[in-house]
Amino acid sequence: MRIGVLTAGGDCPGLNAVIRSVVHRALTGHGDEVIGFEDGFKGLLDGHYRPLDLNAVSGILARGGTVLGSARLERGRLREAAETAAELAQQYGIDALIPIGGEGTLTASRMLADAGMPVVGVPKTIDNDISATDRTFGFDTAVTVATEAIDRLKTTAESHQRVMVVEVMGRHAGWIALESGMAGGAHGICLPERPFQVEDVVKMVEERFSRGKKFAVICVAEGAHPAEGSMDYQKGVIDQFGHERFLGIGNRLAAELEQRLGKEARPVILGHVQRGGTPTAYDRVLATRFGWHAVEAVHRGEFGMMTALRGTDVTMVPLAEAVTQLKRVPTDRMHEAESVF
Amino acid sequence: MRIGVLTAGGDCPGLNAVIRSVVHRALTGHGDEVIGFEDGFKGLLDGHYRPLDLNAVSGILARGGTVLGSARLERGRLREAAETAAELAQQYGIDALIPIGGEGTLTASRMLADAGMPVVGVPKTIDNDISATDRTFGFDTAVTVATEAIDRLKTTAESHQRVMVVEVMGRHAGWIALESGMAGGAHGICLPERPFQVEDVVKMVEERFSRGKKFAVICVAEGAHPAEGSMDYQKGVIDQFGHERFLGIGNRLAAELEQRLGKEARPVILGHVQRGGTPTAYDRVLATRFGWHAVEAVHRGEFGMMTALRGTDVTMVPLAEAVTQLKRVPTDRMHEAESVF
Amino acid sequence: MRIGVLTAGGDCPGLNAVIRSVVHRALTGHGDEVIGFEDGFKGLLDGHYRPLDLNAVSGILARGGTVLGSARLERGRLREAAETAAELAQQYGIDALIPIGGEGTLTASRMLADAGMPVVGVPKTIDNDISATDRTFGFDTAVTVATEAIDRLKTTAESHQRVMVVEVMGRHAGWIALESGMAGGAHGICLPERPFQVEDVVKMVEERFSRGKKFAVICVAEGAHPAEGSMDYQKGVIDQFGHERFLGIGNRLAAELEQRLGKEARPVILGHVQRGGTPTAYDRVLATRFGWHAVEAVHRGEFGMMTALRGTDVTMVPLAEAVTQLKRVPTDRMHEAESVF
Amino acid sequence: MRIGVLTAGGDCPGLNAVIRSVVHRALTGHGDEVIGFEDGFKGLLDGHYRPLDLNAVSGILARGGTVLGSARLERGRLREAAETAAELAQQYGIDALIPIGGEGTLTASRMLADAGMPVVGVPKTIDNDISATDRTFGFDTAVTVATEAIDRLKTTAESHQRVMVVEVMGRHAGWIALESGMAGGAHGICLPERPFQVEDVVKMVEERFSRGKKFAVICVAEGAHPAEGSMDYQKGVIDQFGHERFLGIGNRLAAELEQRLGKEARPVILGHVQRGGTPTAYDRVLATRFGWHAVEAVHRGEFGMMTALRGTDVTMVPLAEAVTQLKRVPTDRMHEAESVF
Repeated sequence: MRIGVLTAGGDCPGLNAVIRSVVHRALTGHGDEVIGFEDGFKGLLDGHYRPLDLNAVSGILARGGTVLGSARLERGRLREAAETAAELAQQYGIDALIPIGGEGTLTASRMLADAGMPVVGVPKTIDNDISATDRTFGFDTAVTVATEAIDRLKTTAESHQRVMVVEVMGRHAGWIALESGMAGGAHGICLPERPFQVEDVVKMVEERFSRGKKFAVICVAEGAHPAEGSMDYQKGVIDQFGHERFLGIGNRLAAELEQRLGKEARPVILGHVQRGGTPTAYDRVLATRFGWHAVEAVHRGEFGMMTALRGTDVTMVPLAEAVTQLKRVPTDRMHEAESVF
Repeated sequence: MRIGVLTAGGDCPGLNAVIRSVVHRALTGHGDEVIGFEDGFKGLLDGHYRPLDLNAVSGILARGGTVLGSARLERGRLREAAETAAELAQQYGIDALIPIGGEGTLTASRMLADAGMPVVGVPKTIDNDISATDRTFGFDTAVTVATEAIDRLKTTAESHQRVMVVEVMGRHAGWIALESGMAGGAHGICLPERPFQVEDVVKMVEERFSRGKKFAVICVAEGAHPAEGSMDYQKGVIDQFGHERFLGIGNRLAAELEQRLGKEARPVILGHVQRGGTPTAYDRVLATRFGWHAVEAVHRGEFGMMTALRGTDVTMVPLAEAVTQLKRVPTDRMHEAESVF
Repeated sequence: MRIGVLTAGGDCPGLNAVIRSVVHRALTGHGDEVIGFEDGFKGLLDGHYRPLDLNAVSGILARGGTVLGSARLERGRLREAAETAAELAQQYGIDALIPIGGEGTLTASRMLADAGMPVVGVPKTIDNDISATDRTFGFDTAVTVATEAIDRLKTTAESHQRVMVVEVMGRHAGWIALESGMAGGAHGICLPERPFQVEDVVKMVEERFSRGKKFAVICVAEGAHPAEGSMDYQKGVIDQFGHERFLGIGNRLAAELEQRLGKEARPVILGHVQRGGTPTAYDRVLATRFGWHAVEAVHRGEFGMMTALRGTDVTMVPLAEAVTQLKRVPTDRMHEAESVF
Repeated sequence: MRIGVLTAGGDCPGLNAVIRSVVHRALTGHGDEVIGFEDGFKGLLDGHYRPLDLNAVSGILARGGTVLGSARLERGRLREAAETAAELAQQYGIDALIPIGGEGTLTASRMLADAGMPVVGVPKTIDNDISATDRTFGFDTAVTVATEAIDRLKTTAESHQRVMVVEVMGRHAGWIALESGMAGGAHGICLPERPFQVEDVVKMVEERFSRGKKFAVICVAEGAHPAEGSMDYQKGVIDQFGHERFLGIGNRLAAELEQRLGKEARPVILGHVQRGGTPTAYDRVLATRFGWHAVEAVHRGEFGMMTALRGTDVTMVPLAEAVTQLKRVPTDRMHEAESVF
């Protein structure tokens, strides 16, 4: 068999581990051939690809990023791809395509599958918000990076009597904020799933200070936002080019708390450090398993499916099911954390 | 309510996170009182305990070890404890006991429960071999430490043309070897679940060298052993006191490979570094959730049960069920790894 | 002897290691007594202190922050302290005071010494900008944290074709930017010591992209600034309270590069994570040595001095000399780095 | 100019950083050409080399090991090399050779230099025992790895009442043991520089236990040994092949302490993890500076010299001077540590 593989969408620790695993399993386990398309679907459309043998994936297991590159593709070109899918598969002589990507990629993969390309998807998102799988690789690394930052911030906040607002990734789902907040022992957590009252945050901090505590750490998902009327949440500031720029929730909440509490409040915006670098052991194992099972699914002819973790097992679920709705933090999980506003 | 908590058995990163979580949930969520028994069941029998308030658990979330101490107890004294369980509970005025421990502790807990003490257990083992739960805290930390070691060893092996044999924990189950071997990209893995032929290891290494590779890393669980007749596996060497000492499988396999391959083979025995130190974010979250749910179970009166992870949920399972059989690495999981001998 | 110790100024990994070392050496080596003043000079003035025995410093070696707390003090109160210094020493019955702090603290210490208090200072700054010592503890930790961030950012930049601007600490001296930029392999470094031409940064990035490279990482000290006329560097933006806020150089440079290059450029502001958390091994050793030598100096009666690293030796230098001028990055050191603009 | 570079001797984190720096500085700064000999002096003698351009060293800064490989060479062949040195230089058309290596390599380099090859050496040893330089790269990484292990062992020892004996590298000099012991807060340190009395170790542990402490950690250099008569230190045990094998000091001391104290004492032998893997930020900076200065020395024609750190400066010292005597831990430095036996 000849299998194509590509990575699309934002960066995510574990992408290389999947690529390596696909190549290892396909070549060693089945005697297949594997080619890698460069820069995601762009490489598929433009015919940029290269053969991947064992040497090509040697030493990449622990490396962040993706050796195949990734690029966003306009929706129009993707539709184009879907239309010519079967033709493309034939053109490259591939018997199956394994796209590794997030929600957009999986939707595109489904379109390709519907259009006749034999596709097996591998889900990827550091946000952990794909509902068909218990976990996605990259998430554990993001939580680990955020937790290490909170660990460091706690000691410095403690010594210097201030409030720290840590903004972590998570535009639509607050998993990273929830788990890094729990792991780091943040005193409050703000999630996109539940608009927060600034007043509640203020009260929590004041209550802590009144108990003699000298600091507070608040972990905020980038997609968290105040309840209506709770805080003046105007959309932007004017930067040096006269462009209106949005100051994220971390910056805004810190300014708001400083104003209301009369105490130093400092924002820390973790940003892209959460999505780069060497993956954790957990993510490497999950990514490796996903790659292995994707190749097995190809050989069983289970197309239009993607890999998913369910409990301790990796199983296959229909792509159609995978992308219907976002997996958001349920109320139950919020209860388990210290204090989700 | 008044709740007692204790930690028993070997060390495990996350113990403090459970203690902290029990105290936080009980005090803040329910207005309970919590006391901590020192050095495991010994403190229970000898009446060594202290009250645990929020200050007592401040700053311990990320710390390894257990602030309550732990000690092994002779079987006889445990039976004694079971017999006087109800009495003890009354004596200390506790409405429930939350023992945190491994297989032995959970068995003891069941005895206490049968004898009338209101018990809710929390399972703990870095080996991940308790069958009633998908995962135990401490395991992810152990795998992470072992993976970091393999990462380091691979670069040094690569530059200097040698074979490295890494011995990791796991006496009866090979989970740490399996996952750290996969995460570290070990070229071969030996598990207690499957006696290995030394000949197969030798062949793998020779095959690698014949392909121009200059090194190999083999990850061995401490409980792995050669198939009968595969290797002279005499039980001991004589140390400086004339005592017979057992050289572990890591040392033996390295010596054997050096002899058979005529190449340098070095053992690295990771030992106790795998079970100490700050827990990973994953383990802190799981430990925190276990503590939270144990307190909830106490308030629902669900005694004789223990916390367990099933998929993404923490649920309660009967202690009786928990300890009936060891969770060992199944054949399916072995297939997913590079090469399990 | 009875020795007082205090920590003042901003947080710095290694403060606890100094405190622990002072206590160990004084108690074990000399049979002294040690008291710790709380919240820096404030504790000295207000009489807030506690005895420090071996148990009080047990387990703090690897912990970030300071168990004694730290607080900024208004200049007025410090002068007050200086005036009553001898009296204060007598009041607390201390034979010597060991203040651990940065430039401000050392200046204050000098005032106290001049006013008759027997003082031995220990220098502290993550910025490494005190000229009398080769290195200060805290610096290595800050560089390590910044380097790990750059490592992570490089893989994500590489996969997604963008420019990353990492802002690290260093208001007046660029040591952290220089060393983390070198260690992380940043493609350009901007230092406070040398105003940069934005045009040069733009050219470097364009030249990289023209060579087929897909990303660039620029490491900027918070105190770096563009040469006059090089970039519109207006002082502020208007935030939600109508307050003018300064967007730091990281944010500004990223916006500027995005505008000029027509490519995504993202700022990452590391902030306080650089000054909290567990110190590196290097910093723990240096801090421990400083504490040890401070106690020895006290016993030799060398007052008005501070500890300093010179080559591999820890020696004593006059406080007067220590704070005369800032240690800035010399041109020689800039040459050794890839490309300092 | 055409410059040859090679790495020889044991692995050491930072080797790749030197290679990269040599290539960057030579190509970008001087327009030179660089070739890399494979597997140390072997590649030089056998004519195995490859050109090194910017792409060849891309992404290796943070990687452990050496992309050029390394191999030990018999003394005889080295003499052969020295004799044909000038000829070899001419044969490869190189104007200078930069060998990166430890004591043996530097001695060989001196022979080559004496024989007429234009050589600039770069010293390398994780042991930090080369007297002409304040520090060598690789040492900080080794100390960091050992310190992290001690950190982890302390929590597990504390919870379970045992003695831990950590054996770290250092055959002839105890720098790693000294600094990781200080950084990790080990309760005792044994160095090759000073034969220890087992009795003293026993007393220290007993004294700790009598003060209510529940554990002790002892950090032992692999080259440390008991004073004569202090402990039965027979040379070997008999392994499965009837070969006499030497159990290192870590294993022996743990057995001895267990016997004498009647308490569990566990050895942890860190081994090769100390010399592999990604270098610390400190080591990357030092290695990069060494590479840069080696190229500059080549262009100034300063042959027969090697790079050295003196205070904060990198300078050049004669190879002859560099290898005359081992830098051992002086008594002064022992005093600064808790308790060197």
